[in-house]
Amino acid sequence: MMKPFRIALAGLGHVGGGVAQILLTRGEDLSQRAGRQLELVAVCARDRSKKRRVDISSIPWIDDPVGLALVNANLVVEVIGGEGEPALSLIEAALDAKKPVVTANKALLSIHGARLAVLAEERGVPLRFEAAAAGGIPIVKGLRQSLITYGIDAIHGVLNGTCNYILTQMEATGRSFKDVLAEAQARGYAEADPELDVGGGDSAHKLSLLSALAFGVPPDTTVMRIEGIAHITQADIHFAREFGCRIKLLGIARQTARGLDQRVQPAMVKLGTPLGDVDSVFNAVVAYAGAAGPFTFEGKGAGEEPTTSAVVSDIVDIARGEAGPAFGRPAKDLRPLPPAPPESHVCPYYLRFDVRDLPGVLAEIAGHLAEQDVSIESMIQRGRRPGEAVAIVMVTHECSETAVARALKAITVSAKVLGPPCMIPIEVG
Amino acid sequence: MMKPFRIALAGLGHVGGGVAQILLTRGEDLSQRAGRQLELVAVCARDRSKKRRVDISSIPWIDDPVGLALVNANLVVEVIGGEGEPALSLIEAALDAKKPVVTANKALLSIHGARLAVLAEERGVPLRFEAAAAGGIPIVKGLRQSLITYGIDAIHGVLNGTCNYILTQMEATGRSFKDVLAEAQARGYAEADPELDVGGGDSAHKLSLLSALAFGVPPDTTVMRIEGIAHITQADIHFAREFGCRIKLLGIARQTARGLDQRVQPAMVKLGTPLGDVDSVFNAVVAYAGAAGPFTFEGKGAGEEPTTSAVVSDIVDIARGEAGPAFGRPAKDLRPLPPAPPESHVCPYYLRFDVRDLPGVLAEIAGHLAEQDVSIESMIQRGRRPGEAVAIVMVTHECSETAVARALKAITVSAKVLGPPCMIPIEVG
Repeated sequence: MMKPFRIALAGLGHVGGGVAQILLTRGEDLSQRAGRQLELVAVCARDRSKKRRVDISSIPWIDDPVGLALVNANLVVEVIGGEGEPALSLIEAALDAKKPVVTANKALLSIHGARLAVLAEERGVPLRFEAAAAGGIPIVKGLRQSLITYGIDAIHGVLNGTCNYILTQMEATGRSFKDVLAEAQARGYAEADPELDVGGGDSAHKLSLLSALAFGVPPDTTVMRIEGIAHITQADIHFAREFGCRIKLLGIARQTARGLDQRVQPAMVKLGTPLGDVDSVFNAVVAYAGAAGPFTFEGKGAGEEPTTSAVVSDIVDIARGEAGPAFGRPAKDLRPLPPAPPESHVCPYYLRFDVRDLPGVLAEIAGHLAEQDVSIESMIQRGRRPGEAVAIVMVTHECSETAVARALKAITVSAKVLGPPCMIPIEVG
Repeated sequence: MMKPFRIALAGLGHVGGGVAQILLTRGEDLSQRAGRQLELVAVCARDRSKKRRVDISSIPWIDDPVGLALVNANLVVEVIGGEGEPALSLIEAALDAKKPVVTANKALLSIHGARLAVLAEERGVPLRFEAAAAGGIPIVKGLRQSLITYGIDAIHGVLNGTCNYILTQMEATGRSFKDVLAEAQARGYAEADPELDVGGGDSAHKLSLLSALAFGVPPDTTVMRIEGIAHITQADIHFAREFGCRIKLLGIARQTARGLDQRVQPAMVKLGTPLGDVDSVFNAVVAYAGAAGPFTFEGKGAGEEPTTSAVVSDIVDIARGEAGPAFGRPAKDLRPLPPAPPESHVCPYYLRFDVRDLPGVLAEIAGHLAEQDVSIESMIQRGRRPGEAVAIVMVTHECSETAVARALKAITVSAKVLGPPCMIPIEVG
C-alpha cells in the first residue's frame, strides 16, 4: 500500500465535524477504497474551546486558517464557508502550494471558481466541489464525467432545500409564506437571515457551477435572472394544484439558438414529474443529455450527512489519484456564452389577477393579452362577488415572456385591477 | 498534450456503432475532457461487409475478436455481448496484455466479474462497466465513487426497460401480458426470445453488479431469488391502482441482520415515489446511503445512445488516467455474504384469490391467514356472483414472506379456491 494520505481540514461546523468523524471512524473502509490510509493531520476552526461531538484532541490544531495550507498534508478541505476570507486565501494558498483542494463553498466558487480552477490546473492539482451543488447528490461528477457524450441541452433543478421545504409546507398546511418561514427558522431549516435561500441567491450559486460543468462557461451569477419565492401566495399554490402542478423554485440553464438561458425563478411543474414530486428538503436535478435523454438525480441537498458524504467522496477520489480539470474541461478554455434574450424564453404561463368583480374586467384583460398575441388555454374565476375583490387565474398557450410582460404592464394600469398581477412560467419537470 | 489515446473496439452493433460514431464525430470535445486525443485504431465485428451508418473504412479491421487484444492500443472496448465466447476470451486477453477494458456486458460480468476484476488489478489496469447496469444512468460510478461515505443499506431498482415498458403498456391499454409482449417484439422493444428480460434474468445480472459495488460481494445471480412478470394479470394491475400503487419488476439488494437479501420480483410500489412513477423504457435506482439518506437516479436504461453515453464516459475516464478497482474495493477483498433467509423479508403483501363466490370462502381464507399471524389491512371483493368465480383481494399488514407462503399453501387446497393465489410484496419505491 502507498504512504498514508494526509488531510488538513479547515472548518469544524456541521460539515467539518461530519468529515472529521467519518475520517476517524470509517477510515478503514475508505482507505480500502482509496488504496491508501486516510489520515487527518491538522484541523482549524474559529473556536478551539468549543465542545465537539468527535474527539479531535489528538489532531494538531492550527489557529490561522491560511496557515493550514502550509502544513505537511496531501490535501486541504475547506468547509469554512462564506464567499470571501479566510476561505478564499486558504484555497489560493493551498493550490499555490500544489495541494489539492476539496471545498463545499458554492458562494465562493460562483465568484472565484474559474480563476481558482486555472490556478489549480497551472499547479497541476485537482480542485473538487461535489458538495457545493445539491449536497449529497453526485450531480457534479455526473455532469463532469458521466453525461458528456452527447453534450447537455438543459439543466432543470430544485436546488434549495429551504425553499422546497417552505413551499411543501405551505401546500401541506395552508399557511402563508411568512408563517412557514418563521417556523422553518425556529426549527433550524432556515437561517436567521433567510434572504440568500428564499431570494434565490443560493440556488443561483449552485446553478452557476452546474452551468459551468454542462456548458463550459465560467460560473457567473451576475448574468442570471434571479427571483425568489417570497411573493408566492396560498392562492397560487392552490391554483397550481387545480392545474395539476406544484410551484417549485427552479434553477434552469438551457442552451438556446440565441445564447445561454440561465435563471432562478418559481415555476409551475406538473405533478408526477421528477421535479414536481420532489418534496421537502430534497433536491433534484434533471439533465437533458442530448440523444441519451434526460437523467434525473434526487436526494438530500443539504444537511450534515449528505454534504459530508459528498466531501468525503471527493477526498477518496483524490487520494486514489483522480485528477482532471475542475469543470471537466481545461479551465483556461471556459468561455462565457451570450445570455439568451428574454423573448427567447417561450413556455405556457400561469397568470393571476386580483381584480374588482365588475362587468368587463375579463374582456379588458383578455383584450390586452390578445394585443400581444398571448392566447389563453384555460381560465378560472371562482365565485361571484360583484364589486368585491376576486382572483382571475389563467394559463396561456406557449408564448414569449416579453409578450406576457408587455400585456401585464398594460393590464396593471387598469382601475379594475388591484395590485400587480402574478406571472409564473410552467416548466417541464 | 499527451500522446493520443488509442482505442480498439470489438462489436459494431447498436452500441459499438454508436461508440464509433461518437469517437469519429465528437472527438474534439471529448479529447478536451480527456486531456489527450482519442483515436479509434482498430475495429472488429462479425460481418465486415455489413452496411454501417458510420464510415469506418479507414479504421483497421481485425477479423479475430481475441486478436484485438494484441493490437497497439491503450484500451479495448468490448460490446460484443453474450456471457461467453468470444467476449470472455477477448477481455481476458486484453487484461492479460495490460490493456484497460471497458465493457457493457452484464451477463458476462455477473458470472466472471470478480475473477476478471482480480486479473485487472493484478495487471494494474482498470476494468470499467458503467453501461452494464441501468444503461446511461451513472449508477455504477455513483455507487463506486460517490455514495461511499456511510455505506449502503439497500438498493431498489427498476432495471429492465422491456419489462417496464410491458407493465406500463398493460396499465395504459388494458391488454394482457401476452398481447403487449407480442407488440413490444414487433416494435423491437423486446427480443424474439424474451425470456432473459421478462423472466427477470437481465435484471438479476444488473443487480449482481450493483450489489458488488454496494456491499463488496462478488457478483452472483445464483444466490438470488428471481421471478419474472409473465404471471401478472390485468386484475393485479387494476387492483394495484386501487391501492394507489403500480406493479414494477424490482431488483432489491438489502443488508439485513441475518444476511444479504437479493431478489428480482414484481412488487407493488406507491404512486408518487421515484420507482412508482418510472414509466416505459426508463430505469431508476434508489440507493439508501446510510445517514446521507436515499438517492434516486433515473434515465434511459437501454438503447443505443444511453448505452453509448455510458461506454464513452468510461473511455474518457480511463484516457484521463482514472484507475482504481472495478468494484470500488480491491477485488481480492470481495467476500460473499450469507443470503438472508426468506423469513427475514417482512413487508405488507398484496394477495389475490380467485374463488367461487360461496358462503364461508372469506372466513376460510381469513382463518388460514390468522393461523399464521398474518393480519389483513384491507380487503376488496367487487360484485356478488353467487356460485361463480370472483376475485378476493387483500393487503396484509407487515408480515414475513414465509408466514404468507404457509397460509397460501393451506388456502390453495380449498375446494372453493380456483387456482394458485397471487402474492406480490408491497415495497418502498
